[in-house]
Amino acid sequence: MTTHSVHTKKKILRTQCPDATGLISKITNICYKHQLNILQNNEFVDHRSGHFFMRTELEGIFNDEMLLADLNYALPEGSFYELKSIEKQKIVILVTKEAHCLGDLLMKQAYGDMDVEITAVIGNHELLKPLVERFDIPFHLVSHEGLSREEHDKLMSEKIKEFSPDYVVLAKYMRILTPQFVSQFDKKIINIHHSFLPAFIGAKPYHQAYERGVKIIGATAHFVNNDLDEGPIIMQDVIHVDHTYTAEAMMKAGRDVEKNVLSRSLEKVLAQRVFVQGNHTIIL
Amino acid sequence: MTTHSVHTKKKILRTQCPDATGLISKITNICYKHQLNILQNNEFVDHRSGHFFMRTELEGIFNDEMLLADLNYALPEGSFYELKSIEKQKIVILVTKEAHCLGDLLMKQAYGDMDVEITAVIGNHELLKPLVERFDIPFHLVSHEGLSREEHDKLMSEKIKEFSPDYVVLAKYMRILTPQFVSQFDKKIINIHHSFLPAFIGAKPYHQAYERGVKIIGATAHFVNNDLDEGPIIMQDVIHVDHTYTAEAMMKAGRDVEKNVLSRSLEKVLAQRVFVQGNHTIIL
Amino acid sequence: MTTHSVHTKKKILRTQCPDATGLISKITNICYKHQLNILQNNEFVDHRSGHFFMRTELEGIFNDEMLLADLNYALPEGSFYELKSIEKQKIVILVTKEAHCLGDLLMKQAYGDMDVEITAVIGNHELLKPLVERFDIPFHLVSHEGLSREEHDKLMSEKIKEFSPDYVVLAKYMRILTPQFVSQFDKKIINIHHSFLPAFIGAKPYHQAYERGVKIIGATAHFVNNDLDEGPIIMQDVIHVDHTYTAEAMMKAGRDVEKNVLSRSLEKVLAQRVFVQGNHTIIL
Amino acid sequence: MTTHSVHTKKKILRTQCPDATGLISKITNICYKHQLNILQNNEFVDHRSGHFFMRTELEGIFNDEMLLADLNYALPEGSFYELKSIEKQKIVILVTKEAHCLGDLLMKQAYGDMDVEITAVIGNHELLKPLVERFDIPFHLVSHEGLSREEHDKLMSEKIKEFSPDYVVLAKYMRILTPQFVSQFDKKIINIHHSFLPAFIGAKPYHQAYERGVKIIGATAHFVNNDLDEGPIIMQDVIHVDHTYTAEAMMKAGRDVEKNVLSRSLEKVLAQRVFVQGNHTIIL
Repeated sequence: MTTHSVHTKKKILRTQCPDATGLISKITNICYKHQLNILQNNEFVDHRSGHFFMRTELEGIFNDEMLLADLNYALPEGSFYELKSIEKQKIVILVTKEAHCLGDLLMKQAYGDMDVEITAVIGNHELLKPLVERFDIPFHLVSHEGLSREEHDKLMSEKIKEFSPDYVVLAKYMRILTPQFVSQFDKKIINIHHSFLPAFIGAKPYHQAYERGVKIIGATAHFVNNDLDEGPIIMQDVIHVDHTYTAEAMMKAGRDVEKNVLSRSLEKVLAQRVFVQGNHTIIL
Repeated sequence: MTTHSVHTKKKILRTQCPDATGLISKITNICYKHQLNILQNNEFVDHRSGHFFMRTELEGIFNDEMLLADLNYALPEGSFYELKSIEKQKIVILVTKEAHCLGDLLMKQAYGDMDVEITAVIGNHELLKPLVERFDIPFHLVSHEGLSREEHDKLMSEKIKEFSPDYVVLAKYMRILTPQFVSQFDKKIINIHHSFLPAFIGAKPYHQAYERGVKIIGATAHFVNNDLDEGPIIMQDVIHVDHTYTAEAMMKAGRDVEKNVLSRSLEKVLAQRVFVQGNHTIIL
Repeated sequence: MTTHSVHTKKKILRTQCPDATGLISKITNICYKHQLNILQNNEFVDHRSGHFFMRTELEGIFNDEMLLADLNYALPEGSFYELKSIEKQKIVILVTKEAHCLGDLLMKQAYGDMDVEITAVIGNHELLKPLVERFDIPFHLVSHEGLSREEHDKLMSEKIKEFSPDYVVLAKYMRILTPQFVSQFDKKIINIHHSFLPAFIGAKPYHQAYERGVKIIGATAHFVNNDLDEGPIIMQDVIHVDHTYTAEAMMKAGRDVEKNVLSRSLEKVLAQRVFVQGNHTIIL
Repeated sequence: MTTHSVHTKKKILRTQCPDATGLISKITNICYKHQLNILQNNEFVDHRSGHFFMRTELEGIFNDEMLLADLNYALPEGSFYELKSIEKQKIVILVTKEAHCLGDLLMKQAYGDMDVEITAVIGNHELLKPLVERFDIPFHLVSHEGLSREEHDKLMSEKIKEFSPDYVVLAKYMRILTPQFVSQFDKKIINIHHSFLPAFIGAKPYHQAYERGVKIIGATAHFVNNDLDEGPIIMQDVIHVDHTYTAEAMMKAGRDVEKNVLSRSLEKVLAQRVFVQGNHTIIL
């Protein structure tokens, strides 16, 4: 390990490119040449898409420009690479009326369990304003009343952009988003859906689950794209239920799964561990 | 507890009827009057359907006829009740080419982990014959070659009926059953589907799961009715997968879930713990 | 089902007594005689201890005194029975410095996910005071500084008794309790221990887990008795970890398990579902 | 990806050495120079021990000698590296009287779910001989009757060595092994213990679990060293139990966990994914 100095920093290098021979050695050679210490390295070759993915946790004195130039020279056409510090990234949280996912994120941020800055919470209802303000975080109401979906989403995206967040977290934000909205935050919107997708897409999944008589219920965190509940899945979890559960009891029990899945997914995303390839995620 | 004598037996009384006040006390009074000891009692009121379900494990000297007559007198119209010994019930297993669920049942039966008699295994392929015969159980081939679905199912059901099984277990029997077949074994056919239903109904669920990029895969045991993969669910379980899993790797990992879910479901069914109400199961 | 009137109430009857023939029928007969509707009934015979346990959810117009007198007459010597309304029971929460379990309970109580009244939070440190007060619940500091364990526990129990709680919840209260303290709240103190007991009893269980190289970590909710981490277990859960987890990472991941196990256990206790028999719990 | 030719092979390179800067780039450079395609690469730096671990799945035309010489030249003192084909490795299974773990391995090997050759099964009892022979695998009895532990272990190890297995699998072999035995198969013996270690070390863990009133039971696969149930843990899993489980019911339910954990652990070991560092495993 290198000696830590005032100039020593920690950054994550993410590479995503068509697979080719020698990629690991090329990239690690460049890091080596830049005298950067590799604290952790993970890579994956997706044989379906023929793509290579690598996440490298680096420590040292960075010359970002030269490092990226070296990578640009070494890597094949069509490569994506990004060098990023993962300290205190910013998120904006969107909510409607349910408190549990929001509360979990507020608690984790307030007590050091999540290294993130919640810049703002925006709701289309005012119900959660007191909770947010108790944690000394600004709450903004962007009501959808009397607005078309397009108009509301426009106001929403404008409000979000004021805070330049790294990610937008939908903590039970119960609105369907317009393509215009989604396209402005590509691979930056994380949603929690209250079912183990692809089961029970759409509205009232717990009621659907109850009607079907399933013995597990679950939650799915995913990036949002333009197909409802069809974006790349980041994480899923389930709990067992039985015949004693009404739809309401499922809903209540499911809340703990939802908040756990959302916060653990967000952590992976913030740690720059989640890559998207088509409709899939690779988590390194 | 009663003293055990040569005449002392253990039986399960199952009651399923419209809910009414005093049912538990009526039924237990009758058991008490018959000097039967209640080893275990479980009941449930399904407030959706307004039905009452009770499973009573009784020990003593039974006069079945009088007990059932007493129940008939005491219970409301439209009640179902059944008194059954659960020792050495008989099953017939239907298979195609996959060995894992079958093998698990054969092992459990052979080494005392499941109190059941596997009267016969019937396959539409001959591949698993050697495995079955290694366990000294008769294997019957009922090939579907050159037959319509109806013709094949007719031969199948005739063959099954030769063994008068308590239950028919589809241990990865990869054929869609005709209504004629299903109606002959109402609530007696248990199937294992290789997905967490209602996700991935139909063919090749692991390939569907892989294409969708899910992070859990699972299995569902259910009673078979006439809607494909839509019968009352008995049990479900899942395991976590990640981006390193190909469809084939999912299939392989899923086999352990399938066999566990099938054998645990069968155990519950054999223990007379599973009640069916509409498209739901109540497991007492 | 009975018609609901202004006088109709819902109560839980709990019975725990030496097993005998006819208990279910005796108890349900009494309920029937009192024209009480049984909404839900669960019972269990523990063949190890020879004890019978029954939880009956009743609805109707209650004459508590006569009902209990009838039970007293019908049940064997040494029976325990209790009739209780489960609405808005009161708890006092004890904390030290960790926020996650406390925060989860505060959130659940504030947003209707737990039907309980948190009468007070008492800490031996002041750190969590702001969090508690944000939820408009009184926080009391009972510092242990300069006090013997006995002196501190005396102050603590006096403070607790001011609020006459139904239960005392140790939400990561990091103090060993004196027998004097414990004896005052017999079967009323619920603790969350941050390991899957009986593994890693005592201090720093995550560090112990890390040293041992385990692949699962967990949490255990239990009633407190006078043997450290040895009281009757109510609930346990685990998560999988791997070689990438440091002790600190385990600690962080474990917090979600701890809070889930504690709050789900508390719900079962509040619902009067948890019976204690020796060092075991029966959860009906 | 390289073109597959008759000379193209697949091998696993495992490296384990003191951490140093540039290791990944050195090793991958050597692979690159040898024109070997990296199909999959995983590495880990254990900051506790300061060791580096890397597993590289290579494809190409191998010159083992030169590759290892190049590695020897490039890597620091005290490095361990190994190049191995993982096809059809050989195991010997040791058993006593319980069939479930053995049966699962026999089934998986027979039906292509595990790429391994079970060269022999050796028992200290004869009970499982028929099962083994049904799968056309030789069974050897090495009875312990009338022998000291040392004498029996000597006969056992001689018998095992006849088959030169890659690994020795204890599939519920209920004997404590002597240090002499263990030392002959260092990091080559995999045991399944029927508890979630370190809980319930030693004999009759399910009875211990029942006495303690735990709400989870589990199984642990580990390498065997000279401390009873203290070797490096490979994998653990648990299932939930409740008050209705007797010790016997736990034992029965636990069998499915045991066999799953053992076979999944063995797969990881056979795939050369499991590294041992002190009392820990790193699974890449």
